[in-house]
Amino acid sequence: MHAIGVDIGGTKIAAGVVDDEGRILAKTRRDTEPDDAASIDAAIADVYAELSAQHKIGAIGLAAAGFVAADRSGVLFAPNIAWRDYPLRDRVAALIDERLEIVVENDANAAGWAEFRYGAAREVEDMLTLTIGTGLGGAIVSHGQLVRGFAGVAAEVGHMRVVPGGHYCGCGHEGCWEQYASGSALVRDAQAAVVAYPDRAARILELAGGEVDKIIGPHVTAAAEEGDALAIDLLAELGRWIGEGAASVAALLDPAMVVIGGGVAAAGDLLLTPARKGFADQLSARGHRPEAEIVVAAMGNDAGIVGAADLARI
Amino acid sequence: MHAIGVDIGGTKIAAGVVDDEGRILAKTRRDTEPDDAASIDAAIADVYAELSAQHKIGAIGLAAAGFVAADRSGVLFAPNIAWRDYPLRDRVAALIDERLEIVVENDANAAGWAEFRYGAAREVEDMLTLTIGTGLGGAIVSHGQLVRGFAGVAAEVGHMRVVPGGHYCGCGHEGCWEQYASGSALVRDAQAAVVAYPDRAARILELAGGEVDKIIGPHVTAAAEEGDALAIDLLAELGRWIGEGAASVAALLDPAMVVIGGGVAAAGDLLLTPARKGFADQLSARGHRPEAEIVVAAMGNDAGIVGAADLARI
Amino acid sequence: MHAIGVDIGGTKIAAGVVDDEGRILAKTRRDTEPDDAASIDAAIADVYAELSAQHKIGAIGLAAAGFVAADRSGVLFAPNIAWRDYPLRDRVAALIDERLEIVVENDANAAGWAEFRYGAAREVEDMLTLTIGTGLGGAIVSHGQLVRGFAGVAAEVGHMRVVPGGHYCGCGHEGCWEQYASGSALVRDAQAAVVAYPDRAARILELAGGEVDKIIGPHVTAAAEEGDALAIDLLAELGRWIGEGAASVAALLDPAMVVIGGGVAAAGDLLLTPARKGFADQLSARGHRPEAEIVVAAMGNDAGIVGAADLARI
Amino acid sequence: MHAIGVDIGGTKIAAGVVDDEGRILAKTRRDTEPDDAASIDAAIADVYAELSAQHKIGAIGLAAAGFVAADRSGVLFAPNIAWRDYPLRDRVAALIDERLEIVVENDANAAGWAEFRYGAAREVEDMLTLTIGTGLGGAIVSHGQLVRGFAGVAAEVGHMRVVPGGHYCGCGHEGCWEQYASGSALVRDAQAAVVAYPDRAARILELAGGEVDKIIGPHVTAAAEEGDALAIDLLAELGRWIGEGAASVAALLDPAMVVIGGGVAAAGDLLLTPARKGFADQLSARGHRPEAEIVVAAMGNDAGIVGAADLARI
Repeated sequence: MHAIGVDIGGTKIAAGVVDDEGRILAKTRRDTEPDDAASIDAAIADVYAELSAQHKIGAIGLAAAGFVAADRSGVLFAPNIAWRDYPLRDRVAALIDERLEIVVENDANAAGWAEFRYGAAREVEDMLTLTIGTGLGGAIVSHGQLVRGFAGVAAEVGHMRVVPGGHYCGCGHEGCWEQYASGSALVRDAQAAVVAYPDRAARILELAGGEVDKIIGPHVTAAAEEGDALAIDLLAELGRWIGEGAASVAALLDPAMVVIGGGVAAAGDLLLTPARKGFADQLSARGHRPEAEIVVAAMGNDAGIVGAADLARI
Repeated sequence: MHAIGVDIGGTKIAAGVVDDEGRILAKTRRDTEPDDAASIDAAIADVYAELSAQHKIGAIGLAAAGFVAADRSGVLFAPNIAWRDYPLRDRVAALIDERLEIVVENDANAAGWAEFRYGAAREVEDMLTLTIGTGLGGAIVSHGQLVRGFAGVAAEVGHMRVVPGGHYCGCGHEGCWEQYASGSALVRDAQAAVVAYPDRAARILELAGGEVDKIIGPHVTAAAEEGDALAIDLLAELGRWIGEGAASVAALLDPAMVVIGGGVAAAGDLLLTPARKGFADQLSARGHRPEAEIVVAAMGNDAGIVGAADLARI
Repeated sequence: MHAIGVDIGGTKIAAGVVDDEGRILAKTRRDTEPDDAASIDAAIADVYAELSAQHKIGAIGLAAAGFVAADRSGVLFAPNIAWRDYPLRDRVAALIDERLEIVVENDANAAGWAEFRYGAAREVEDMLTLTIGTGLGGAIVSHGQLVRGFAGVAAEVGHMRVVPGGHYCGCGHEGCWEQYASGSALVRDAQAAVVAYPDRAARILELAGGEVDKIIGPHVTAAAEEGDALAIDLLAELGRWIGEGAASVAALLDPAMVVIGGGVAAAGDLLLTPARKGFADQLSARGHRPEAEIVVAAMGNDAGIVGAADLARI
Repeated sequence: MHAIGVDIGGTKIAAGVVDDEGRILAKTRRDTEPDDAASIDAAIADVYAELSAQHKIGAIGLAAAGFVAADRSGVLFAPNIAWRDYPLRDRVAALIDERLEIVVENDANAAGWAEFRYGAAREVEDMLTLTIGTGLGGAIVSHGQLVRGFAGVAAEVGHMRVVPGGHYCGCGHEGCWEQYASGSALVRDAQAAVVAYPDRAARILELAGGEVDKIIGPHVTAAAEEGDALAIDLLAELGRWIGEGAASVAALLDPAMVVIGGGVAAAGDLLLTPARKGFADQLSARGHRPEAEIVVAAMGNDAGIVGAADLARI
């Protein structure tokens, strides 16, 4: 069965027709207005109309950045879109003539599911995917099943606390993993380094045009690839936190594989090597157990589309 | 089908015949020698002989304190019993005439499963059980399935790190949750208080006969029940760590219920009230999600027997 | 000998004539422009002209928020004023006809010195003053002498690290004491509580007119004085960090008294009681040593003027 | 004036005649019994008799491991010797015919004072000495004066807290600097590594004869000098904590020099290089201030004798 997967970002949606092998047969996109939920509904209906003109569609999966209701009918809360207890499934269904299965899934869950079904983790049954962009999202698969939790909000891995009294988090708490293992953390650490070690931070600052507020993650990665010592250290620190946090998750879930996706993964071995070291250093009971592999995601930016589509037809 | 569950401790085994409703129809026990693995095999065969004389038995579940192989055939490593890659299932099978299903399960998993099937969590599908005795063990049920992980060593919750650079743990790492949320942690904190605040610790020390090395958890609980301020604080601190750690687990797993079992649960509300507060204080996205209940285990010391028996017949 | 003390803030200076008993005989003030160092020089000369018209002046002490050179001749660096290696003493001297002693002192050192000489700590020889406003400054007196350090930058107490990996600090490091024990920390914690515990934070938010960005410290204090539970907790947490950090300082310096000044001290016992408890809970070797008292500063907003004047004539 | 300095250990005392240049003209020692305070008094009188037979002595300084009374007359508390509010000065004086100045000093203060007067820090006025053996002791000199504090117990640097909720300390608290920056910490970390990383720890374990309980600091240093990766890491971690903690002290005291003494200093650059890095990484306001040098102590094991003698004649 072919299904449409829709990846709903704040300012645009991307949609694709996905076949049973996880291949995208057609893609399209629309700009949207995050403050106008109805505009998103309409955009989804519109991409459906476009894609279903050429393909027979059996289901639609909607990947949403937010807390998704346990029955997959809508969004309880979204940080960046005007959704509060929003019945996204029914709103979209009302705009579509056909009767077909529509499900809402958390976007990180969708992306992780794509890795599990068709990507880096397709050979394992137990997996953790970390999607590391501005924030830190995750997806957990246990014994072949997506772990959604009782209220549908499992795998909010970014809010596992890793440092009591640590960095403030947007969630109102302190020390959340996301504040140490995300693109935002990398940028803040680079900005702090400009103050604490101006000499060491010169190259990163230069890449940002001399403006500390303009530093972005790719500046750090670029500097590190040139061999800049501070940039290498900053990525190593980010990787260490990824690995050490993953070791805590592994104490709970014993995954066979940890998949690293999101924009931060572009740093490659500069990030992965310290992540693997941090994981190995902190994994409990090493030597008495097989160890999870840490690998880079394989599905790229389409993971959300593919995973949402696939989850809609299960 | 009736099954036998065997709870294998260091120095004794307890066994029972368990019916489909989770009731124990008959019980027996044997002393064992932790350094002599064969003596444990023999004791298991012996209790089987005794119990099967009166009951028709379809399966045997063996609850073992250690890392259990993913195929449930034996023990990879046990901290307190002479098991290293030990094929417990086959050794026991060789001593029993009948052909029946024998499975090995981690003891905390077995106890948690009993709570899930017949105890405090029987109404929910997603659950975390914490078994808090000397150490901190756990069991995770997701969507009605026991989470074993790819290597069979999931739910080693006590080794989630909660304080970087924190207390040393027997596992060789620092800051493991077990070192803050266990009976051992309670005792060490009480002993430290004798040094740091001798006046405040007078009652606890008195209950221990004046010897700091003789302090045990029940002294703290007894003092707290009398109203001793330090003892109340120590239990509150223990409860706080239980709740705060559980909030990190909830970020990953979103359980409907957290069940507190093990000897420490005897402290009742002196522990539960601060545990609930710690959980609520640290739970991410409160108000945007339903919240897990924190309750005391219902199955008592028989949980391991019942859970092991039940897991053997699934 | 009478001396003038000048307290140089970002946008104004306050000056006074101080007699040998620490009394202020006359006061005046000027508005200044923090980005224009020369305007500050001129304002100082101007207040000197005004005050010296009525009083015979033997010395001038200038209290400056920044790193003061070890020879007290100028400012190495100031966070909020355009001073970089600025020879403040000589610039002011050039604008004044009389030849008299002019010295530059760190403002927190000046305020603490006033407490030591004429205020809350006048009976002791070893003292720590914490000036807790937006930030956390300090002054240390050891055996009757102000501790300036070899480069003149001692008593930067706010940058003692109290949490590895803790809150980001404006200095480019993490976990500085200032980020836990200051008015800014109080406000950020209140703002975080609005997100994490909106129900509990309702009263504080109401006092801020419903705008989280408008919350200021006095809102928290006012709510606490009304009995608001969250506000009381926030001040208690602030007090705990003040006390626990002071216990670390006491391990190094063994002061007879810890004086709490600055705007935060207005919270009174809501702050002091938990500060004293935090100090007592963390003080090493209690029972084997006399303990420092923790008291509120006595000199009020004039402490900088009085201390600077007094240090100029020593 | 010549003075005798006596370094009082648990099981022996070492004494010497010290001239005005800090040279030891004669030395002797006695075995003592830590549980018998009178035997120590007698041994001191005995070494005085021996040494004063050949040298004219003007004062005696007694360096004691413990809390010394502010008037330097005795010991409030000692962890390893049977002294509780013990009037050591008067007891010794009663056994000596001559009337001469006798003073009691903390042993780490005495050793640090020797470095300040005649050793590594003789050119500076503001100094921190860290004496790192089994534990972590310290001495602080501010503007040429030994900082004793109001009760005589300043410079207990080992009990500055560096990790909230960190390692248990013998003082009854958690996270004391001593538990991260001492020979004991090094040994415990090595022992933990044997459990957590048995392969990496093979060489250290071998040097300890295969017995984890036999590991001592010199095994780690020896392995590191051979190039063993884990041993190098362990010393680097120890050095990092020394340096980072020293940066916190520097925020308070701004010393010109940090002197590292005690047995751990034997590791040389394996320790000093990471200590200097840790200090530089964490020092607040680098670039806006001169920085303390971190150097190795110069006075060796005689520092206590020399410092105690010198402090007795001041």
